[in-house]
Amino acid sequence: MKKIEHIGIAVKNLKESNALFGKLFGEPHYKVETVESEGVNTSFFQVGDNKIELLEASKDDSPIAKFIARKGEGIHHIAFDVDDIEAEIIRLKEEGFIVLNDRPKRGADNKWVAFLHPKSSNGVLIELCQEIKE
Amino acid sequence: MKKIEHIGIAVKNLKESNALFGKLFGEPHYKVETVESEGVNTSFFQVGDNKIELLEASKDDSPIAKFIARKGEGIHHIAFDVDDIEAEIIRLKEEGFIVLNDRPKRGADNKWVAFLHPKSSNGVLIELCQEIKE
Repeated sequence: MKKIEHIGIAVKNLKESNALFGKLFGEPHYKVETVESEGVNTSFFQVGDNKIELLEASKDDSPIAKFIARKGEGIHHIAFDVDDIEAEIIRLKEEGFIVLNDRPKRGADNKWVAFLHPKSSNGVLIELCQEIKE
Repeated sequence: MKKIEHIGIAVKNLKESNALFGKLFGEPHYKVETVESEGVNTSFFQVGDNKIELLEASKDDSPIAKFIARKGEGIHHIAFDVDDIEAEIIRLKEEGFIVLNDRPKRGADNKWVAFLHPKSSNGVLIELCQEIKE
């Protein structure tokens, strides 16, 4: 794991939360992006060398909608930047982690992503990500 | 907010979680510290420029024990490094955030710390921290 790439926070209303976190950080978000395949609208804040990603459900059955229904708004996942996501998927499986994606998939912010099930990592949903270079 | 200083993760058993997160990061924790006033045993992992802090309750009525009883193991808080914690406490109160400490208190890892109530920050417990220089 090279670094924390971002922390994902589930919110009910992206517009309101963009204003709130803008006040918190003293700087506005720098980007908004919809990821249709995940059913989310996202926004990004830069904090030092890391990012905070706000996640709003764009449809009722999206994972974020289910998360908020079950746990309320709050921290949803931590994403770690890796050099070789395919090698990390294999390594972490061998270490006993439950990797939810056998192959990386396209996520927000031009990244290949894969998730570890919170059950195998102390209740923490972990995202691995690697920049897409094409 | 200068940067994410660390992410705090509530765990039931620090020894087991140290082993688990050591596998995840491919590197062991570099420090263990007990903070009596908070009722926690902590350990720290370095990931890039940030830290991951594991938190285990050292007594039954500690905030971490209550958190785990209510929500289970998982991400507990995000800590942001600030240059002037007293000025940030004033600024964030004026912005409408509920700051739980009028004055910074001593936390783990040689820091002055103050917390924002999750109710005023989208369900996210936020810690402000500033290195103690004496």
